Amino acid sequence: MDQLKEKIRQAAVDARNTKPLVGSVTNTITNTFVANAQLAVGGSAAMVFVPDESESLARAGNAFYINVGGIFPVYAETLPAVVRTLKETGKPWVLDPVAVGIGSLRTSVLSLFKDFKPTIIRGNASEIIALAGLWELGESGASHVRGVDSVDPVSAARSAAVALARWTGGAVAVSGATDLVTDGTSVVLSHGGSHFMEKITGAGCSLGGVAAVYAAVADPFVAALTATAIYNHAGRRAGSLAAGPGSFNMHFLDELYKASADDISNNPFDIEEATK
Amino acid sequence: MDQLKEKIRQAAVDARNTKPLVGSVTNTITNTFVANAQLAVGGSAAMVFVPDESESLARAGNAFYINVGGIFPVYAETLPAVVRTLKETGKPWVLDPVAVGIGSLRTSVLSLFKDFKPTIIRGNASEIIALAGLWELGESGASHVRGVDSVDPVSAARSAAVALARWTGGAVAVSGATDLVTDGTSVVLSHGGSHFMEKITGAGCSLGGVAAVYAAVADPFVAALTATAIYNHAGRRAGSLAAGPGSFNMHFLDELYKASADDISNNPFDIEEATK
Amino acid sequence: MDQLKEKIRQAAVDARNTKPLVGSVTNTITNTFVANAQLAVGGSAAMVFVPDESESLARAGNAFYINVGGIFPVYAETLPAVVRTLKETGKPWVLDPVAVGIGSLRTSVLSLFKDFKPTIIRGNASEIIALAGLWELGESGASHVRGVDSVDPVSAARSAAVALARWTGGAVAVSGATDLVTDGTSVVLSHGGSHFMEKITGAGCSLGGVAAVYAAVADPFVAALTATAIYNHAGRRAGSLAAGPGSFNMHFLDELYKASADDISNNPFDIEEATK
Repeated sequence: MDQLKEKIRQAAVDARNTKPLVGSVTNTITNTFVANAQLAVGGSAAMVFVPDESESLARAGNAFYINVGGIFPVYAETLPAVVRTLKETGKPWVLDPVAVGIGSLRTSVLSLFKDFKPTIIRGNASEIIALAGLWELGESGASHVRGVDSVDPVSAARSAAVALARWTGGAVAVSGATDLVTDGTSVVLSHGGSHFMEKITGAGCSLGGVAAVYAAVADPFVAALTATAIYNHAGRRAGSLAAGPGSFNMHFLDELYKASADDISNNPFDIEEATK
Repeated sequence: MDQLKEKIRQAAVDARNTKPLVGSVTNTITNTFVANAQLAVGGSAAMVFVPDESESLARAGNAFYINVGGIFPVYAETLPAVVRTLKETGKPWVLDPVAVGIGSLRTSVLSLFKDFKPTIIRGNASEIIALAGLWELGESGASHVRGVDSVDPVSAARSAAVALARWTGGAVAVSGATDLVTDGTSVVLSHGGSHFMEKITGAGCSLGGVAAVYAAVADPFVAALTATAIYNHAGRRAGSLAAGPGSFNMHFLDELYKASADDISNNPFDIEEATK
Repeated sequence: MDQLKEKIRQAAVDARNTKPLVGSVTNTITNTFVANAQLAVGGSAAMVFVPDESESLARAGNAFYINVGGIFPVYAETLPAVVRTLKETGKPWVLDPVAVGIGSLRTSVLSLFKDFKPTIIRGNASEIIALAGLWELGESGASHVRGVDSVDPVSAARSAAVALARWTGGAVAVSGATDLVTDGTSVVLSHGGSHFMEKITGAGCSLGGVAAVYAAVADPFVAALTATAIYNHAGRRAGSLAAGPGSFNMHFLDELYKASADDISNNPFDIEEATK
């Protein structure tokens, strides 16, 4: 665990020192918040929608973020183009499978992604269960996606998360009251956050975007853990200062920015074996 | 009036207790604020743009919100698909006819909506007058739409609002210095808000989105009144705390979240007969 | 210089008194912030994406803003249509050439704009250098566009900015630690701002949008200077109040709103001859 904490500390430092460029194809509901969160932790953020721009950015950047919330028709061309470029160039990328199952284009691109093996998958419990189901990875149980909010507890997504991580060879982060991060071998339960995170739009999306910043400077498991830890820490701090979701939103960005490498690596977590 | 206040109180309670899922096809300029406002009053928010996702969400959700600001070409397919599904399933929905008259696609979908009879129509005075004109509902007077801001006082839209409500059988809310809400029989003038509401983008759009949350748990007139009352209350409170539009924005979301059912039902209003 | 300060003061007053309508075709990552900034300085903001709506708005408005960040396929039709209408009607407009060079559609529309001569061009140093290169305006040096952030200092863009201003006959504003504004004859270095402006998304985009508000009431050079001065002033003030980028964001909008005409015209600047 001390070794893991040191790696988390290093990822936090490296992100601030190297300002990794993270391109995104992400949704217009939360993209402002995603960009601001990425900037707050030390990254450089750029968002695009059309195929050739996403390929340019995948090549130019240090990591990439794909979030399928609020998709537009052009994503049918953009997303296949960008994942092919990411594979070709070996760049790390994060997938947020928002509201998987809601329509045919979303299902089609998420199905395609199975063979491209995202470096990190970030979702709520219902989305993680549903994605493992879509990819036919073992007995992952029935999902209960309802709009963009989870109706399953994080614990219900444990075996789906482990199955996904074993398939991709990367990491999976499940967001909820207690967050779960796994690389298919270990399962970390990370503590913190605030009840206000469910009362603002984009808490989950921006966590995916921040994980992409860390994926530019650390291995998938450490990157997912570092993103989860800074969210737990900043969420806890902002929650103690906020009078409601508006002030939580403001304090949360401040606390992401102010979080020291020690604050992040000292965020409490438990580590367990990933018996499926 | 006491009966109406009790219904408003109940709608506020029910929204917080049942967390209704409200899907939206709404504009990318204000969608973050719309979602945050819907979450603050107790709803669950989801925004989509493409036809099959909007149909899924219309079926899965408890109410729907359509806002024609900042439209994209795909709306030509999405909006007819979603209103057909809403009619078929009998789900309540709110229409915000932003900047009616600015172009052919917006005019075409707003014309189509006449026969689908939105449960609640929410607009500024100029938009309400222009929509009644587009739908050829009586002598509704000349509109003065200029961009997205109203150039008419709320009182000038009274007969247009009543005509629209009589046509739809639902409710119409006109936003301005004093807000007007009508079901075609009664006209309520609701008091509160802040001059800062004109200095932030999305005050009107998000009121429409919040009305959709209440439309999931109350009849159209009560839903429109509850949304208007919580906006008047939270706007007044936030206005007294704000140093400018940035802090108003923050305090407004906090006050939406903190508003009790009594705060909302006790917001001052006058009720009159809707002699056209 | 006193004459210039008086013109800046007058532009600030006129924007608040006349509430100019500024239409925009701008990106969905920062459009909320652009609109809120335009409202804060006294303008009326409206954003559209499709061709006929952009033409309507170009005709109805007092000035226009085009920002090519986060473009969608429909921009291939929208942007040529809007610049033709702007030329035909002689309306002032501001161009923000975000991430010039990232893809073929962006390059194609930015190339087209050369002959339409934007009233004001606003960019970071890398973008200004790259645009002058794209338009083949003299020995403007090599650009280093990397995503949306500049990798060149403002001083490196001086000759490119002067060349662009001489070509358009308008003004060019280069944003950075010290901002540079030129009309091709004089070069103004404007002081202020905050290191937090790089830590929020949309500082540059919204400066372009605010320049369009002032372009509706002043000549191009004065409009660019007034926008730059209010950003320097509000940035300095907000930076002194902020605990991080979240609170900076809030205070910045408050300070844009609160800035008096004297605050704006008294922001410190140096004026030099534009020897290329």
